[in-house]
Amino acid sequence: MNIVPIVKILQGGIAIGKEVTVRGWVRTRRDSKSGMSFLTIYDGSCFNSLQVIVNNQLDNYEQEVMNLTTGCSVEVTGIVKLSKGKGQKIELFISQVIVVGMVENPNRYPISAKHHSIEYLREVSHLRPRTNLIGAITRIRHTLAQAIHRFFNKEGYFWVSTPIITTYDTEGASKMFRVSTLDLQNIPLKRNGTINFEKDFFCKEAFLTVSGQLNGEAYACSLSKIYTFGPTFRAENSNTSRHLSEFWMVEPEVAFADLNNIISLSENMLKYVFNSVLCERYDDLAFFVEHINKNVINRLEQFIKTDFIQIDYIDAIKLLKKSNKSFKNLVDWGMDFSSEHERYLTEQYFKAPIVIKNYPKNIKAFYMRINPDGKTVAAMDVLVPGIGEILGGSQREERLNELDIRMREIGLNQEDYKWYRDLRRYGTVPHSGFGLGFERMVAYVTSIKNIREAIPFPRTPNNARF
Amino acid sequence: MNIVPIVKILQGGIAIGKEVTVRGWVRTRRDSKSGMSFLTIYDGSCFNSLQVIVNNQLDNYEQEVMNLTTGCSVEVTGIVKLSKGKGQKIELFISQVIVVGMVENPNRYPISAKHHSIEYLREVSHLRPRTNLIGAITRIRHTLAQAIHRFFNKEGYFWVSTPIITTYDTEGASKMFRVSTLDLQNIPLKRNGTINFEKDFFCKEAFLTVSGQLNGEAYACSLSKIYTFGPTFRAENSNTSRHLSEFWMVEPEVAFADLNNIISLSENMLKYVFNSVLCERYDDLAFFVEHINKNVINRLEQFIKTDFIQIDYIDAIKLLKKSNKSFKNLVDWGMDFSSEHERYLTEQYFKAPIVIKNYPKNIKAFYMRINPDGKTVAAMDVLVPGIGEILGGSQREERLNELDIRMREIGLNQEDYKWYRDLRRYGTVPHSGFGLGFERMVAYVTSIKNIREAIPFPRTPNNARF
Repeated sequence: MNIVPIVKILQGGIAIGKEVTVRGWVRTRRDSKSGMSFLTIYDGSCFNSLQVIVNNQLDNYEQEVMNLTTGCSVEVTGIVKLSKGKGQKIELFISQVIVVGMVENPNRYPISAKHHSIEYLREVSHLRPRTNLIGAITRIRHTLAQAIHRFFNKEGYFWVSTPIITTYDTEGASKMFRVSTLDLQNIPLKRNGTINFEKDFFCKEAFLTVSGQLNGEAYACSLSKIYTFGPTFRAENSNTSRHLSEFWMVEPEVAFADLNNIISLSENMLKYVFNSVLCERYDDLAFFVEHINKNVINRLEQFIKTDFIQIDYIDAIKLLKKSNKSFKNLVDWGMDFSSEHERYLTEQYFKAPIVIKNYPKNIKAFYMRINPDGKTVAAMDVLVPGIGEILGGSQREERLNELDIRMREIGLNQEDYKWYRDLRRYGTVPHSGFGLGFERMVAYVTSIKNIREAIPFPRTPNNARF
Repeated sequence: MNIVPIVKILQGGIAIGKEVTVRGWVRTRRDSKSGMSFLTIYDGSCFNSLQVIVNNQLDNYEQEVMNLTTGCSVEVTGIVKLSKGKGQKIELFISQVIVVGMVENPNRYPISAKHHSIEYLREVSHLRPRTNLIGAITRIRHTLAQAIHRFFNKEGYFWVSTPIITTYDTEGASKMFRVSTLDLQNIPLKRNGTINFEKDFFCKEAFLTVSGQLNGEAYACSLSKIYTFGPTFRAENSNTSRHLSEFWMVEPEVAFADLNNIISLSENMLKYVFNSVLCERYDDLAFFVEHINKNVINRLEQFIKTDFIQIDYIDAIKLLKKSNKSFKNLVDWGMDFSSEHERYLTEQYFKAPIVIKNYPKNIKAFYMRINPDGKTVAAMDVLVPGIGEILGGSQREERLNELDIRMREIGLNQEDYKWYRDLRRYGTVPHSGFGLGFERMVAYVTSIKNIREAIPFPRTPNNARF
């Protein structure tokens, strides 16, 4: 028995006339008057299904084949032939159909062949990968992740796993999830009435990380070039199409690198990764062109050809003021950009990916390097049409004295960050990095409207189902 | 300025006579009577340091070079030459030394050039990647992870990220960390006095996952071949050299695969990955041969050449009984193996990696497929010399009826596992998978004694520092 994935047959990897066995699920069944049934079978190995032609001479034709419905699992054996019909080049002429699993109550199969709304599909997140949409996203997500690992590896970066459970708040003011084994019905208190975290699992108050950056810096200050790729968490009550409570981040950190170096790194990485998805997942992307946004492939091709446009924060502010647009949020130096500003700049004004850099220090995190003007920091955000910010980074403050001043300004306790300060006390080096929200990248590539489709089982406020 | 990583110079990638710039940290400094200083510089790009020779004619020789100590960061420029000295083939003749960062109070530098115990190094986990030991482990860990991604990609598997925050306990009886945003000083209660988790972030009691398997099954039952690679958690109070509270797992899940298929998959994967680390990290492995276990390289080479030995649980029990060893734990059918049993079998009896399969159902998880004997399940564990169990897997129960019986036996609520049961109601297929503890693999490859060195920032009971 020569079991092959469907992708191999459809890509022409099996000689015409050869017998193969395919295992998968029925997408559709159509019976012709001439006594044949046409099944389309998918196995997830590629976007397209395989057409298989079943003759009514088969022993189990009446009893089994004629009862197959969307979602049934089968093992079919037959001969690879060139198709005379429209819609496919290759099909399978079947000599045997083994029914592996039927669908209970086909009329109520949650993802029957008809159209389902995206919102409904979230209610059946365990079955939605069986749809064309989520199947395609899953393969694209995989290809993006592989390309990211491959890019960093070939550039000499080491993947470092930074801790998920942490006692630090990297960004300074994030809403974090508590991690604990305390008995909620019997919380241990200290004499002064505060909670006694010494009784908790880690003997200290612990949370889910919002970023691996601080730990990543420790490794960059030893191994020069590292990246993280792991889950991060925000306990913010943001029920938007752009936020998840649990999402994956890619965070490279580079010793001896300044802001311009990591802007180049981000440009090279995005272009490499987008090129990979164009090369490897063209069939999946074509689905999005047809059903979601006709520019999905064009704009990735355009992205690869176009140099990033760099602009200073202050100049971005000037452009927004000159635009004569009536933004909901007032435009003034010192403000953070909101989505409408980002979209105006990247979609309407520049019509290209842009990098905004040198932001006011007060809207950025404590670890970013103060510029000579004393007011701005060496930070950058990459904005892309259709989604806004896709990644953000900075040069880190490597000067202990400046870091301490900034931590005092913000009210962070030096003692809490002792180890982080150590990196500046012992052979400090300029270093920089960025963070890429992986699901935002998936959403950008596919043009899906809601980030909840960009991850298999989304976690959002009120929802940790499945 | 031609900035190059040290690995490129030491591997002969730079022509002799060419000028290059290297950025890194000083490992040692030695001054000769003839007015030269020999520095060794590391940048993390490979195991070995680069020897650079500094002439006392440099402007900053007296004031700066002569003050360099272990850990100082420098940028040095010079000509690549063949070395006449012992211990290195290539060295750098320096024309410029720029001191980037000094070490504050060198006598108290936490990881000075002298020997430090592994236990002490854990106390400075933010600096320990600067040591040869942890640097080598980090590079090996990276190479193992890359090879795992590469292996599954080339075999047609898709990487799927399964949720970290979950409301499920995959293994049935694990100790799990609670994830919550409830105010511990003001826990909301229901009228009956129990905790009102509807007020919590996810409107439900939520935990950190112990395994991505159940979710992975949903994707395997759509896309046929998937794998996860992500963090998992156990809130067990196990202070041993083999347990972490937070560790990374690799979990492939394969539709239409039986137990033997995934035994083969595990063998192929381990051999591919070990071969990659032998090809790509020989210099790092050599360090472990010299300092930790002289068989590190031998046994990986041996592993690749040797077929796995498969043995039924019942035969393993017989072998243990026949051994006449006085084990601490009684040997009898129905028991789970403890470390002493595993080690006897794999290290003393077979002296090879072995696969034990078909375990009694009562010591295995509810989702494993019942064998025709009704007493055992289609489960397997791979044991390797030196570490014992490195991975475990099973064929999953794909028959709804059998699954329901098993869930009732164990006392699991059908309603809670509704979505998991759906996978059996709609086009069910035989499927199988395994879980590999990634840090155990790192520990096996390097022969390090404690798994806390196999992950950058270990989380264990009472410890979530850094």
